[in-house]
Amino acid sequence: MRFVFMFYEGMTALDLIGPHEILCRLPGVQTIRVARHAGWIRCDSGIALNATSAFSDISQADYLMVPGAGNATSLRDEPQTLDWIRSIHRTTTWTTAVCSGTLILGAAGLLKGVKATTHWAVHDRLLKFGAQPVNARVVEDGKIMTGAGVTAGIDMALTLASRIAGTDVARALQLGIEYDPHPPFPGGHPSKADPALVAAVRARMERTFVD
Amino acid sequence: MRFVFMFYEGMTALDLIGPHEILCRLPGVQTIRVARHAGWIRCDSGIALNATSAFSDISQADYLMVPGAGNATSLRDEPQTLDWIRSIHRTTTWTTAVCSGTLILGAAGLLKGVKATTHWAVHDRLLKFGAQPVNARVVEDGKIMTGAGVTAGIDMALTLASRIAGTDVARALQLGIEYDPHPPFPGGHPSKADPALVAAVRARMERTFVD
Repeated sequence: MRFVFMFYEGMTALDLIGPHEILCRLPGVQTIRVARHAGWIRCDSGIALNATSAFSDISQADYLMVPGAGNATSLRDEPQTLDWIRSIHRTTTWTTAVCSGTLILGAAGLLKGVKATTHWAVHDRLLKFGAQPVNARVVEDGKIMTGAGVTAGIDMALTLASRIAGTDVARALQLGIEYDPHPPFPGGHPSKADPALVAAVRARMERTFVD
Repeated sequence: MRFVFMFYEGMTALDLIGPHEILCRLPGVQTIRVARHAGWIRCDSGIALNATSAFSDISQADYLMVPGAGNATSLRDEPQTLDWIRSIHRTTTWTTAVCSGTLILGAAGLLKGVKATTHWAVHDRLLKFGAQPVNARVVEDGKIMTGAGVTAGIDMALTLASRIAGTDVARALQLGIEYDPHPPFPGGHPSKADPALVAAVRARMERTFVD
């Protein structure tokens, strides 16, 4: 099975590395890291990751993963990227996105009438793309699976691992990465956080998104 | 503040990227990614990350982070790496490690009499280095903070963020990465998992470690 992870300048590393760490360990999986052009891709945190393939090298995937970014919606102005996503989606068994990566699937026209989730701060933007926003950490609708903000990619990938390889394999992967989270504070979701803090984080995040 | 992340061949990307994603967003922090030699470092998942500095470029850090790897203990045969860790540790306010990265701190001689944690499957190896093993996800002892397996780095980094910049900043970071985990299964820790599964994962992981 060919698992393709899409890279682009400014993406959020953890959106991608969480699912990559889990899914690359599924039996029989080959992972491919692809960007518009092969080479270094600089993430929004400053770290650079290596894309080993260009879009033009890859025309099929069993699985596609699109991470989010502060500037994710700017990809709507890259028709080559959206065309490639559409063409790969026609070949996939699973098309997935994490965080604002979901908005990129939306910009590619893949979410019309589809239930989906994204980062809480930009959740209402799903409506622009004709999606049905669902307030959940992981949402599955047909072959499209989406995760909420950043760390939700870990929950999404474990869910997907169980669909692909069964619950025993997914549980072994979860134990391998010791995924027994103990957040040091409550409030990782706005429904549980101080409203003033939510407003401040929302304002900061919304500024970075193209409408 | 200069936050230094140590890279090495075969490291586990998620051990490092979890804390990096959080700590790079602390106010006033400069992150530096350093390896024995600058350049591409290939992780155990096949993904390559870029180290922009060599050990010889960096002689001081306010914060040091050492990730784990399948082959982490093989670094005990790299005296140059252990010397560098020791010399940086003398300059830090915080020295941290995640997963089997803790065993590298041990090999460098930094854990004698120190309370520490590491991945559950190799937890008993802490004794070899004179550490006091603590069965906890995050352990703080003086200026040394350690995290359990892989994903525990996220909990560790949020804990550290609150120590450095206060609880409000840490909570904002947690909300920004939507860290409101919903593991799809129970059993991310061996105390909650099927014993046969624990034994299988332990056997697989132990094989990769040098004694």
